[in-house]
Formats: sequence, structure tokens, C-alpha cells
Amino acid sequence: MSGKAPRLSEEGLIARHFAPLAGPGADGLRDDAASLAPTPGHDLVLTVDAVVAGVHYFPDDPPASVAAKALAVNLSDLAAKGAAPRGFLLTLALSPDWTEDWLAAFAGGLGAAAARHGCPLLGGDTVRAAGPTLVSVTAFGEVPAGGIVRRGTARPGDVICVSGTIGDAALGLRLRLEPEAAWARALTPEDRAHLADRYLHPRPRLALAPAIRRCATAAMDVSDGLVGDLAKMLPGRGATVEIAAVPLSPAAAAAIRLAPDLIDAALSGGDDYEILCTVAPRDLDAFRAAAAEAGVPVAAIGTVAAGEGAPLFREPDGGVRRFARGAFSHF
Amino acid sequence: MSGKAPRLSEEGLIARHFAPLAGPGADGLRDDAASLAPTPGHDLVLTVDAVVAGVHYFPDDPPASVAAKALAVNLSDLAAKGAAPRGFLLTLALSPDWTEDWLAAFAGGLGAAAARHGCPLLGGDTVRAAGPTLVSVTAFGEVPAGGIVRRGTARPGDVICVSGTIGDAALGLRLRLEPEAAWARALTPEDRAHLADRYLHPRPRLALAPAIRRCATAAMDVSDGLVGDLAKMLPGRGATVEIAAVPLSPAAAAAIRLAPDLIDAALSGGDDYEILCTVAPRDLDAFRAAAAEAGVPVAAIGTVAAGEGAPLFREPDGGVRRFARGAFSHF
Repeated sequence: MSGKAPRLSEEGLIARHFAPLAGPGADGLRDDAASLAPTPGHDLVLTVDAVVAGVHYFPDDPPASVAAKALAVNLSDLAAKGAAPRGFLLTLALSPDWTEDWLAAFAGGLGAAAARHGCPLLGGDTVRAAGPTLVSVTAFGEVPAGGIVRRGTARPGDVICVSGTIGDAALGLRLRLEPEAAWARALTPEDRAHLADRYLHPRPRLALAPAIRRCATAAMDVSDGLVGDLAKMLPGRGATVEIAAVPLSPAAAAAIRLAPDLIDAALSGGDDYEILCTVAPRDLDAFRAAAAEAGVPVAAIGTVAAGEGAPLFREPDGGVRRFARGAFSHF
Repeated sequence: MSGKAPRLSEEGLIARHFAPLAGPGADGLRDDAASLAPTPGHDLVLTVDAVVAGVHYFPDDPPASVAAKALAVNLSDLAAKGAAPRGFLLTLALSPDWTEDWLAAFAGGLGAAAARHGCPLLGGDTVRAAGPTLVSVTAFGEVPAGGIVRRGTARPGDVICVSGTIGDAALGLRLRLEPEAAWARALTPEDRAHLADRYLHPRPRLALAPAIRRCATAAMDVSDGLVGDLAKMLPGRGATVEIAAVPLSPAAAAAIRLAPDLIDAALSGGDDYEILCTVAPRDLDAFRAAAAEAGVPVAAIGTVAAGEGAPLFREPDGGVRRFARGAFSHF
């Protein structure tokens, strides 16, 4: 309500760091709004997610990585809905100790990620926060009209599929929190680097969007952990997942061999940013073929049940594994 | 990065407080994204603005007022672009001391404001903040294709117009900060209430959007003060504003009679959320007529000059008034 001693005006900051990132319709960030029209015959898909220092990332993470993550977690939502990215808006609440170096690196990383994913900056708002830095991104994608793939529309008998590998990011986070744990020290440097990188740099599965649109009956991204997210996808519905079928990276498999309880972190931890979707059995071959064409590995891990209940995770010996917690919750 | 003791899950919180506000395309907030298609032949207009406790509002402001303000400041941007509202996304970062009572009142106020303005909730993200509460709203409007009214497109000779009255909110903020000032104590209770209410409850000028679209050569909303915002609208361009022509409410006029220096706060303070626009002289009558039809008072306060320079604010005696500061800046 009262201005502090000015460092750089918001206008100056935007012109210097963010205007170079502006896409069509953004008017060079010289206006308070952008215009965007979907391709004729398409709907826009809208999603918003925020990352907060100390909650979703470490305050000392590289600013370019923070920026890339803030965009990637939103593009991951677009991918899960079958959407192709069109652009994004940014809310940046800077903690009192922000520096222009941090901001320059953040903007550089944001621009690189935006270019990589074909998703330009359309506008934003920058405010100061008395607390930790917060980055909120609103991302816009598009799908052919009526084509958004929903989360809650799986049908009994559908095959449950995931992309990529599960658990790497959760184990990468564990590595950050417990670098001296016996299992952490026993991993190869390459395996440690892989897990740490999966936590720091989510890779939105945008290439899979067309296959999802064509073949999936329901889809979401795995952001709060496979166990909790599958329960969200199938509220009150039964399902069976074969734990042995859940794809693990060599690094995650090595960590779990060293400390078998880490399977819980891998399956119920978060930050995978892989796709979780359901596919009718008759469409499974087509889905696999479309995913292969897109260069994205997919695996069938279970089946949606006919009755009510909760998703069950089956051990190789037929037993059912229980998890201490479901999805990550911020509250 | 590590969960605190859970109070209410994010899903539970959304289902209880926000799902009742969900509009078409939001799938009852049971998904991670919404779909939105503009009316055929229209573009979407996108804008984002955040309000932070202790910066943009007082932490003890009524939560329903905070919610209404967070939406209103964005709808004000849509109005200035000539857009009709279609919906919004919400990022809510809750300070550690949030209570469910606060949240219930916030959601109630948000729903009431959304209904009043015909702008439903389409989705959101709720996170915890280690600092003050932050509310970021991304609002979507629409204009006929190509019809967005830009900020930087005024032409020499255009008439500068504003809606409503200027300075009320800035004086309302002063009242909050200096309730015991002589001028504050000398105002009538009605005048004090008027000024305080203008600060607390911005009124987006959505009714004026069609007139802006039809008649304005450029437009923006006055959020950071008339002096600074006019300079933003006319970067490097000259203009003359007659201070006597700037419309004041009876309450603001009374305050300025009591303490003449308050004219500076009125003209360079922020939070007016009135429309500042330029109109070609030949369209001025049509603009006035359209504004009158919309029930929104408008006033011509000056003229865009032909040459370079900065906007000049002229006193009734012909002198030029200087202002200690330009636009409110958060940095």
C-alpha cells in the first residue's frame, strides 16, 4: 500500500527482461491484455498452476530451471488434455531479496523453454511478495472443438497406461533432502544425476497429445504421485495396477534395489509429469503405435474395474500394497 | 517440498468452496483444465493481475471484498480493451494463518462478484505461501475479431476522456492510513464512507466496453494513477490535461477543499479503475451518447498533442502542475 524505495519500475523490468519473449497478440507487452483466437474449429484449453519457493522448488534452484518448471508443469496439463500449446501468461511475485541477475536468468530460462515448446509469452503481472517467490503460469492450448480429454471419463475395462518412467522425480527430491543416505551414496553418479534432473526439469509430454486425443478415454498428468492421482482419476471406482508393470528408469530401479521401501516414494511421490490415461482395449494397439510414432514410451499398468472401490496396487506375489499417504497435498 | 500437517486437502477445499462457482467448460473443477471457445468471429482477450495482502489490500479487509477486488481489477482491464467477460482462472496462495472461515467468505464474495459480472470461475490452483496471501486472477473476455482496443494507439488531436470520477480510491486509501488527519476528521461520515468504499470496492466499467470499441482510438484502465497511466498511454508523446476538467466526486472535492495538496494524491494515486481513453474529435458526440446509454459518466479532460514530450497537467491559472511521483510502482 506504500511503495518501497524503487529499484526498477515494473514497466522497465518488463521492457528489459520479458518484452523480448512476447508472442503474437501480446503487443510487445506494452498493453494490459493480449488477444488470442483459437484456430477455426478449435476450443482453447486453459490451465493454471503456481510453483512456490520452498514448496515446489528449492530457493537455490537455478532460476532458469525454476522458470522452465513453472511453464512445464502447465504444459504437462495441456498435453494430458490432448492440447497443443498456444501461449501463456505469467504472474511473478518476487521475494524481497530478488536480484536483477536472478530475474535475468529466470527470463532467459523462460524464453528458452517457451521457444522449445512453441508457447510464447502473452502477458503477465509482476508484484513484490513479502514472502517467498511465487510463479503462477496460465497456459493456453487448443484442441479440435469438443476434443478436450477429461479426467473423470474412464470406463470399466479400460486399460490404465502411463508414459515414460514413474518415480524418478520423487527419488530425485529424496536425493536432495537426504544426500548422505546409504542408498544415495551407493548409486552411480550417472543415476544420481538422472534422478536429480527429473526433479529439476519436468518434461511435458506434448508429443503425446495427438495420441491421447485419438485413443484415450480419460487422461491427466501425474503431478502429485501415481497412487494419489489414479485415485483422483477414478473417484470411488475400482482398479487394479500391477506394480511390476509400472515402468521404472534404470536409476530408479537401482535405488529401489538398494532400499526397497523407496518403491513407496516412487509410486506415491509427485513431480513425475508423465501422462496417466485410460484406453479402451480395442484402441490399445493404436495408442501404442501413435505413442511410438511420437517417440514417447508408454506402458499398460492395470485395468479399470467394473465396481466401486479404490485402486489396488498388486505386488508380484499377488498381495496388495498399502501406501502411507495418497497424493501430495499442500494443506 | 515437505507437507505440513494437513488441514483440508486441496481437492476437498475446491469441492467445498469453489466447485459451486464453476462455469461451463470447467467440468465442475474436477479436471486440471477448462475448455473455452470464443463466440464465432470473436477473439479472446486475456489479462492477469495479482493482488497481495499488505501491498494491494489491507490484510484485515473483508475477505469477500478482497475476492471482489481481485476479480474487478482484471475485469477493468477487459472493459478497457472493449471486451465482454467470459470467465476466469484463480491462483490462490494462502498465508500460513488462513482459516476456513476466511476462505468461505472469500469464495462467497468471489461467487457473488462473478455472478454480478457474468464471469464464471473456470479453474484454479491453490497453494500455501510462507508469506502474505496472494490472489492472482486470469480473466478472459471477447471482442469481435481484430477489435481489441490497444493502449498505445492514440493519435494527435484525439480528445482524452475518463469515466466516472478520479482520485476517490487514492483518497480512500489515505483515509485508511491517516484516519486522524484534520481533513479526514472534517469530512462528513458520508464522504468518508464514499471514499473508503471506492478504495475497497473497485467497479469495473464493463458497461462502457461497447462504446470504447466503437469510438476509442486507444484505451486503458486507470489503476496506477491518472498521471502515471496517461504517461504510459502516450510514451514520449505530448498531451495537455486541464486539471479543472478532471471529474471529482463531491467527497473528493470536499477533501481537496479541506487540504488542497490532496489533488496530487487524487491525480497520481492509484486504484481508480476508471477508463482512460482517447477519442477522435469527430467521434466525441457518439462516444458521449454511447456512454450515456450505458449509464457511465464520461468527461473530456484534455488533448493529445502533435509533438513529442510528456503529458502536461494545466492549472486553472494556466500554470503547469508537477507531481512528486508518477505511477505507483511495486518495485
